[in-house]
Amino acid sequence: MNQDRSWATAITEIKKNEIRLRGYRIDALMGQITFTQAIYLAMMGELPAPETATLLDAILVASVDHGASPPSVLAARTAAGTGAPLNAAIAAGVLSINRHHGGAIENSMKLIKNALERAHDESETVTQAATETVKEARRTGQRLPGFGHRVHRTDPRARRLFELAEKLGVAGKAVIVTRALESALEQQTGRHLPINVDGAIAALLTDLGFPIPLSNAFFIIARIPGLVAHAVEETTRERPMRRIDPTRHTYDGPPARDLGKNAIDTDPDI
Amino acid sequence: MNQDRSWATAITEIKKNEIRLRGYRIDALMGQITFTQAIYLAMMGELPAPETATLLDAILVASVDHGASPPSVLAARTAAGTGAPLNAAIAAGVLSINRHHGGAIENSMKLIKNALERAHDESETVTQAATETVKEARRTGQRLPGFGHRVHRTDPRARRLFELAEKLGVAGKAVIVTRALESALEQQTGRHLPINVDGAIAALLTDLGFPIPLSNAFFIIARIPGLVAHAVEETTRERPMRRIDPTRHTYDGPPARDLGKNAIDTDPDI
Amino acid sequence: MNQDRSWATAITEIKKNEIRLRGYRIDALMGQITFTQAIYLAMMGELPAPETATLLDAILVASVDHGASPPSVLAARTAAGTGAPLNAAIAAGVLSINRHHGGAIENSMKLIKNALERAHDESETVTQAATETVKEARRTGQRLPGFGHRVHRTDPRARRLFELAEKLGVAGKAVIVTRALESALEQQTGRHLPINVDGAIAALLTDLGFPIPLSNAFFIIARIPGLVAHAVEETTRERPMRRIDPTRHTYDGPPARDLGKNAIDTDPDI
Amino acid sequence: MNQDRSWATAITEIKKNEIRLRGYRIDALMGQITFTQAIYLAMMGELPAPETATLLDAILVASVDHGASPPSVLAARTAAGTGAPLNAAIAAGVLSINRHHGGAIENSMKLIKNALERAHDESETVTQAATETVKEARRTGQRLPGFGHRVHRTDPRARRLFELAEKLGVAGKAVIVTRALESALEQQTGRHLPINVDGAIAALLTDLGFPIPLSNAFFIIARIPGLVAHAVEETTRERPMRRIDPTRHTYDGPPARDLGKNAIDTDPDI
Repeated sequence: MNQDRSWATAITEIKKNEIRLRGYRIDALMGQITFTQAIYLAMMGELPAPETATLLDAILVASVDHGASPPSVLAARTAAGTGAPLNAAIAAGVLSINRHHGGAIENSMKLIKNALERAHDESETVTQAATETVKEARRTGQRLPGFGHRVHRTDPRARRLFELAEKLGVAGKAVIVTRALESALEQQTGRHLPINVDGAIAALLTDLGFPIPLSNAFFIIARIPGLVAHAVEETTRERPMRRIDPTRHTYDGPPARDLGKNAIDTDPDI
Repeated sequence: MNQDRSWATAITEIKKNEIRLRGYRIDALMGQITFTQAIYLAMMGELPAPETATLLDAILVASVDHGASPPSVLAARTAAGTGAPLNAAIAAGVLSINRHHGGAIENSMKLIKNALERAHDESETVTQAATETVKEARRTGQRLPGFGHRVHRTDPRARRLFELAEKLGVAGKAVIVTRALESALEQQTGRHLPINVDGAIAALLTDLGFPIPLSNAFFIIARIPGLVAHAVEETTRERPMRRIDPTRHTYDGPPARDLGKNAIDTDPDI
Repeated sequence: MNQDRSWATAITEIKKNEIRLRGYRIDALMGQITFTQAIYLAMMGELPAPETATLLDAILVASVDHGASPPSVLAARTAAGTGAPLNAAIAAGVLSINRHHGGAIENSMKLIKNALERAHDESETVTQAATETVKEARRTGQRLPGFGHRVHRTDPRARRLFELAEKLGVAGKAVIVTRALESALEQQTGRHLPINVDGAIAALLTDLGFPIPLSNAFFIIARIPGLVAHAVEETTRERPMRRIDPTRHTYDGPPARDLGKNAIDTDPDI
Repeated sequence: MNQDRSWATAITEIKKNEIRLRGYRIDALMGQITFTQAIYLAMMGELPAPETATLLDAILVASVDHGASPPSVLAARTAAGTGAPLNAAIAAGVLSINRHHGGAIENSMKLIKNALERAHDESETVTQAATETVKEARRTGQRLPGFGHRVHRTDPRARRLFELAEKLGVAGKAVIVTRALESALEQQTGRHLPINVDGAIAALLTDLGFPIPLSNAFFIIARIPGLVAHAVEETTRERPMRRIDPTRHTYDGPPARDLGKNAIDTDPDI
């Protein structure tokens, strides 16, 4: 019975004066790797290849914030406005990241993997597999996750992610099939529903070899700093218990500006 | 009444096909800045100086995980073991980051700021201010947050953070007063209670000019990837509803290893 | 666009000096109905029949607490031990009520409804439907939710719930099929896996006409007072950040006692 | 070290086939006590006196719901609209019950206890103590918690709670001092800020001998069924991800109706 309750973890080893994350001394990692590399190491068990790290940074930067109307932001602000401590406001926000918000990455990864498996199993071309996948979705009345956006006609984040993936040489079969799905969708519906940020992230995480259950983790990790900024702004700029209209807000932050000399090249070839 | 309910946000501006975080186009930031720089930008409104970014990376890497026994990990694993989706397990973990776990950074920042103000207001030397601060804490029976550790005699993360701060030239008054507090504590108690990771992070965030309410945010952001790794490990390696003994675990991950050629120098001078 | 965003709720009407829950003035309900009746009214839209209210009270009382080892209690205590405010500790507990803990009621209701539908659609007797349901579950390797218990051989709560339902005259088809499932299970496996509290509650909620999605709500509502008692006990009796062994606890509360003259008969016929 | 980690709980004893809540067999309690009595038993360790139970029922019924605009409801609906499971939506709601929403009960209890202690310590009359308490609050610019309401001029729940407490003979010093505070407030400000539901509950919980930390628990427990009703309504009536305007809603539930013959007298003398 006692034996039964001992267990093992493969993440971090703690000894007196020594902490090893996936085998590496954490004080040796500090100053040598970025937080993004540590995120990959914690979750995947190995350090990422340099291009993977660069692309993950881009994916995380893309997802930091999307303004004040996403439900995770509204839940975090609502909690903050009642006097919740920061961690509780964050938790309320994280609890609002589900199937319909953030979760599209997971569903989009499933769609992409299915189309890839179909191409493999049925010896179809990627184009055929995409055409059949869209047909099937339309027959069963399913919306294809990862395409179209409420606000954007061309999602600038999706475009930039694919551009970076090409330059870094990590765009693979998943990117190809995702583009084929976009084309098939346009041909069959006559409407241009472009790949959105969720679809682009799903394609890249697939090509980078991420397991599906970790896809939501990326979005959650990326969005926390945004939730923090909103919760703190709510507490410092607004009165408690105000009624938050999710649409009636304007932007009054720094005016449009360029990176210019602030640019810190992490990858000078891009 | 209607006017009343319009409001403003200074974080992100959303227009059709254009997303600007603190004034910068998000697709221009992608590929040019790291996630850590984006975290700073989202929370502080400006891009960090290069040394600040390097030090923040080190702070975040230091805090990613500390094994399987911290309460935030146990809460996340407990929730995951009942079948909770990943975001709910993360939320349960985040709700366990409070005054006694993670929160020491905030209290340590207050202590450091008080000692610095005391030195300024009373025209005391930093040493005098530290001596008086420790005396007062001992008289009122308060534990000094940021000193001593259950497991480590010398916290390797604290040592490394101060080393990096010195090399990067960002160690300032807060680092000095924190070291003076450590000395005063040893002189008055006869025991060596070294600066721990919380105390070191508090000193550096103070020298970097962070407001106190954001201190907890850093720890929470840093620890999420660790919580994710533990929740996923719980789900994939353990049976549901097992009774988790917080002490009876061993490490069976990758053996001790060095960065070696894997090292990715983000700052070649360090 | 504006019209689009107006919406309606059928739960509570608020006017100046007047609050109506499902049409009833709340101050008229106060002193006239119990909390349990108000729970039913809020969730189902009508006041319950007297027998329904009595049985719901018994279901809720049965589920208030089951000692210190369920995961919801451990998560709430873990959060409380880090200094979490009461609502955060409760939230951490509630997030640990899922498929494997509490959620058996929902799955058991589905099982019972399926068996009932089978009997109806295939014109089978309840006994045949139960036999076939168990066969199918065994063929596909599924555990039947609502039968067997880690600790109890005969779950005293299940036995009492069925006794009360019989006396109150509300035991119907769902109780019959649940008993048939218990028998079929014993015949086919040779083991006695008695109906547990989840199975009994599932049978009664089905006979009372509750929709499946509300079944989890009952368990969550019932368990909150238990979570509160444990979180407060953790804060007042234990030191912060202790490592909570889920098995190493003993009971030191009031000794075994009978209701005796304390009994407050809410239903003198039972 | 081992001894160190064993611990005790005074809430529930679990033996094979026997569950005792605070000493009472739970199957003996079922059918004999209401959920409200079990809530009191779990939290306070003893069964409540009959008048206490009746008054607690009234307090809980009063707090079940207050329409669709309180922040806890909006947070729960926001989470539910993203596809959150019921427990996560409830948790998001519970995390929005804090100082400014629900928490007024706790602060109001502190105010009432302070005024009572002042009367005792300074040998002042209750009227004098109330006058001085209000003066002090006004001097330091503090709002008195428990008085005034955004919507109601006379809070029908407060009026009814005091009426019930008088009839049941449990209104004591706390009710008297709360009324004295209301008078002192009107005399000193010239405005009528009537006792609201939070103030009335605070007065009654004080007279019933509840410790302050449990006050929030009552509100949280009472409000969960309301949160459940709203989360389910959001999921069943509204489309996912809609933008929830907290003011633009109307009521379309059952029309105004009286208890009439539906009334279930739990206390025929009232």
